[in-house]
Amino acid sequence: MILFQILVLLSQLVGLAGITLIGVWMGKLGGFGWDGSGKEFNLHPLLMTIGLIFLYAEAILAYRVFRNSKKVYIKSLHGIIHMLAFVCAVVGLKAVFDNHNANNISNMYSLHSWIGLTTVILFGLQLLCGFVTFLFPGLQQSLRAVYLPTHVYFGVFIFGMAVATALMGITEKLLFTLKVPPNDYASLPETARIGNSAGFFFVIFAAIVGFLVTYPDYKREPTEDEEYEHQPIIMK
Amino acid sequence: MILFQILVLLSQLVGLAGITLIGVWMGKLGGFGWDGSGKEFNLHPLLMTIGLIFLYAEAILAYRVFRNSKKVYIKSLHGIIHMLAFVCAVVGLKAVFDNHNANNISNMYSLHSWIGLTTVILFGLQLLCGFVTFLFPGLQQSLRAVYLPTHVYFGVFIFGMAVATALMGITEKLLFTLKVPPNDYASLPETARIGNSAGFFFVIFAAIVGFLVTYPDYKREPTEDEEYEHQPIIMK
Repeated sequence: MILFQILVLLSQLVGLAGITLIGVWMGKLGGFGWDGSGKEFNLHPLLMTIGLIFLYAEAILAYRVFRNSKKVYIKSLHGIIHMLAFVCAVVGLKAVFDNHNANNISNMYSLHSWIGLTTVILFGLQLLCGFVTFLFPGLQQSLRAVYLPTHVYFGVFIFGMAVATALMGITEKLLFTLKVPPNDYASLPETARIGNSAGFFFVIFAAIVGFLVTYPDYKREPTEDEEYEHQPIIMK
Repeated sequence: MILFQILVLLSQLVGLAGITLIGVWMGKLGGFGWDGSGKEFNLHPLLMTIGLIFLYAEAILAYRVFRNSKKVYIKSLHGIIHMLAFVCAVVGLKAVFDNHNANNISNMYSLHSWIGLTTVILFGLQLLCGFVTFLFPGLQQSLRAVYLPTHVYFGVFIFGMAVATALMGITEKLLFTLKVPPNDYASLPETARIGNSAGFFFVIFAAIVGFLVTYPDYKREPTEDEEYEHQPIIMK
């Protein structure tokens, strides 16, 4: 499991590097505030990436990193981190709508906004379905087992959507703040290098997290009291 | 398996809709040519999405759709479609570099170009490793079995990178060809609706294809003569 540990460590470094670069970049674009100005906008990239990329990944990695803990603890941790992620996302969305509305900028015209809002809505639904299915007491174990593969798949897919949305957001922000080629942007000024590097780190982060979560040998072994959830289900 | 068939059909419709919209959009931006002009650029989005999104997905779906065929046939089909996809990608890259060079536009400054070129390189490496491992005769079966989960994981991940790159490309092209908000783009003129819709279709396409390829119940059952490839490997 030494490779597993190295990959987990690497994921944390790469993920934090991405988030830090977003913070530094937004700092260079004027820093943060809550006044409808560009400073409020600047909270949007930072909160969305902290919530829907970094914390989201931490929540799913909990099942691998704490594989030997009692399942109810891992489940609770998974749910709590996801709720924190959701709060970040909601405040991050509020920041961009506030900024747009204060400056008469239209909302929801870009592909970034279409895919991004869909991502947040799907994330909210996934959180709700997960809570009702896996934490709500009394639900039949067989229903949990049937829903589990779908929950896992959409969990990873929505994470991928969040990363793709961040990449579009970085692309947009650089094109809004730099002159398009063959002028400023193409000479790779500091903010372009920072923004592109942040995006690149998020892709590497997603590659490692996705691998850790889906690689068969890293799957968590069920303990005896919870084997029901891992029995193969015939649905064909 | 009726749900499986519906999802396969739906994936084809949604994928073709995305490709068609890209073609229509590029048609509205002047159509196609091979003269260094914008018409040559227009081949770039069309060829990249045909190759690295649509054909790529067809190649991986082959293992699910033709589940009952002899494995060597599926493997060959998988490899041939991927080679076609690679040819589309190379010609599509040539188109954008030609267009940039003919018009003194810098290359490789955007996040789209960074992630996109990485995607094509990884795709080429994956094709090479897959060919050497699975089609090259004489390689030890145990090596094939060890590499298989990594090949499958990176296959799906690189597909995700291709879709994310397309979303960034659509975002860029709309910002280059439309005035930024609060002007043209925000009123969603025809090309914005076409481009955004194409991106949205690609995301739905990726969701369905990813589900079909990874959902446990849809996994292909090995036939007796090939069981070696599906035995669990202990690598911990």
